[in-house]
Amino acid sequence: MQSVTRQKTRVGEFELIARLQAVLDEARQVAHRIAPPPAIVDIGDDAAAVRRGKLVDLYTADAMVDGVHFRRGQIPWKDLGWKAMASNQSDIAAMGGHPMYALVTLGITVDERAEDLEEMYRGLTLAGNKYGGQVVGGDIVRSPVLFVNIALTGVADVPVNVPEVERAPVMKGTMRQPGVAEAAVLMKRSAAQPGDLIGVTGKVGSSAGGLAALDRSISGPEAQTLIRSHFHPEPRVPEGLILVQNGVLAAMDISDGLVADMGKMAHLSNVSARIELDRVPVDAALKRLFPGEWNAMVLGGGEDYELLFTAPPSLMQQVLPMLGNSAAVIGEIAAAATGGSETVLVVDSHGQPVPVRHTGWDHLLET
Amino acid sequence: MQSVTRQKTRVGEFELIARLQAVLDEARQVAHRIAPPPAIVDIGDDAAAVRRGKLVDLYTADAMVDGVHFRRGQIPWKDLGWKAMASNQSDIAAMGGHPMYALVTLGITVDERAEDLEEMYRGLTLAGNKYGGQVVGGDIVRSPVLFVNIALTGVADVPVNVPEVERAPVMKGTMRQPGVAEAAVLMKRSAAQPGDLIGVTGKVGSSAGGLAALDRSISGPEAQTLIRSHFHPEPRVPEGLILVQNGVLAAMDISDGLVADMGKMAHLSNVSARIELDRVPVDAALKRLFPGEWNAMVLGGGEDYELLFTAPPSLMQQVLPMLGNSAAVIGEIAAAATGGSETVLVVDSHGQPVPVRHTGWDHLLET
Repeated sequence: MQSVTRQKTRVGEFELIARLQAVLDEARQVAHRIAPPPAIVDIGDDAAAVRRGKLVDLYTADAMVDGVHFRRGQIPWKDLGWKAMASNQSDIAAMGGHPMYALVTLGITVDERAEDLEEMYRGLTLAGNKYGGQVVGGDIVRSPVLFVNIALTGVADVPVNVPEVERAPVMKGTMRQPGVAEAAVLMKRSAAQPGDLIGVTGKVGSSAGGLAALDRSISGPEAQTLIRSHFHPEPRVPEGLILVQNGVLAAMDISDGLVADMGKMAHLSNVSARIELDRVPVDAALKRLFPGEWNAMVLGGGEDYELLFTAPPSLMQQVLPMLGNSAAVIGEIAAAATGGSETVLVVDSHGQPVPVRHTGWDHLLET
Repeated sequence: MQSVTRQKTRVGEFELIARLQAVLDEARQVAHRIAPPPAIVDIGDDAAAVRRGKLVDLYTADAMVDGVHFRRGQIPWKDLGWKAMASNQSDIAAMGGHPMYALVTLGITVDERAEDLEEMYRGLTLAGNKYGGQVVGGDIVRSPVLFVNIALTGVADVPVNVPEVERAPVMKGTMRQPGVAEAAVLMKRSAAQPGDLIGVTGKVGSSAGGLAALDRSISGPEAQTLIRSHFHPEPRVPEGLILVQNGVLAAMDISDGLVADMGKMAHLSNVSARIELDRVPVDAALKRLFPGEWNAMVLGGGEDYELLFTAPPSLMQQVLPMLGNSAAVIGEIAAAATGGSETVLVVDSHGQPVPVRHTGWDHLLET
């Protein structure tokens, strides 16, 4: 019916986000007097942070679309609900917050059985009950494709403007200036510092391995372990709280791949990162099932939902044992790259550069 | 690839919502200790309300899907953004709140031009700047169909636990018990009382008329007026604040049609409603362009985003003149219907029942 000539979006995800961000920035210049106070943390981090009275609330949203982020008929409905919630809880965890309230928008083709949608809701309430996040509303609409979007709120661990001495556990290993309490109770992508060590909370690449096992119909207990990581990721909410309570300032979750996400953090912090591949925790099953590919899965695979964080060596030494057996130091932060050197350099045990296939996962340009 | 036998959802919107609500209720029975305090107002109202320190925050989400809620190529991109934001602002308005922060989830086919998406963002920031609502984050994903979901937060007009005397303007015309301050600062669907009059903030049916004008390629200034109502609704945020500040307790927005929405309010309030068709404000253009159909558009058409509210006669008399020329009393609330009588009865100027085509717009069963 319409005669509009359609052209491709043509720009990548990052350029599009930048262009839309520019529209938002322009709008703020002329914002109405009833505009709320600006966010403390805005677009570009895992979640936005806004002041609500004496609290700092966190807001994030994440959508999953059939055929893009999951395949209906492949992922169990309960896991679909779990994963939709977990990916949002992971964003709150990366800021060091507690998940609070969720709005679920469900686009359904009306092909779905009500029983299956109930199972999906059971999955998301299981994740909510385990890690926080209570569904208080949302929207159900018809759609030619099944999708689920969750908007999740959270609250920063310690209310702002509370004297440092009232906090428990007492922070060690970080230098704090009076008056920076507000910033200190949130972890940000932009807070990595040269000299920091880089840590992760657990194994990387398992989700990508699980997806490959599904695609190639690989079965057996090792494949099942990886598939479980892909369908049923555990958001690192308790770990995020441990990090922020002990003074870690820089973190994000690994959703787009280790190197890509490290690159975002380095870019926003104006630093460079060096990752030692052999120090990255990797499931033995991944190495055995994919001997020629596990490297690429570890460096480029997404949806692990582990936390990637940086801290000065003394703080890292203190906090790492609190995070469980799989947590590890995987590299270090240096000054910003100059003269064509890589923002994120990956090296092997001999210090030789490891080629990286994916340096940035673009959700729009790649399939 | 998959061999799953697909069956139809088969249940309507209201049954599906009830079944999913049951899953949520079950989950709350076993909620983890870190569960946040329960919402003050939960699923079923225009927005959820939760306590954040001394504030009461509001959360709502609304999705628009290409081919279902709009047609790409027909609605101007700027209006698409405006309408996506306005439908959410309308939900906050219906609770008597101020819109605050927005998360925008955009599902794009990558067929869209970046310039068009920028225009869409301009539209939503225009609505945000006019009525409140600042975009602080969201998600952009690939999707086989274009969709936009906005999750919007708001704040109730008066912080809870503030003595009545501190409020301005002073409330008149309502009886208040000490200790009910919390409930009094929000309007709910469930608060209509027998003896209340029913009010609307403006003209009803114009959006449906605009859609019909588009579908039938009717042109001219009168059609344009109606199409403007359809593409560019004004959320009644200032009106919602006037209502709540003056003590109105029961309101919702008209998004699914006057009779259907009145029915929801009556059901949740356990009352019945009598609407006098001739008292409903209707645009003269609608009557002229659709002489045989305007009745049905007024009673059954959706997306007007006017506020529907009830109040005792004295309060209604006081508040109505504050709302502008189009606001009107359109009927009254009585005790719950018994013995097969209609929950929402529509009558003509002689008191004779008017047949109602749509008694409930079901988003899932109807197209």
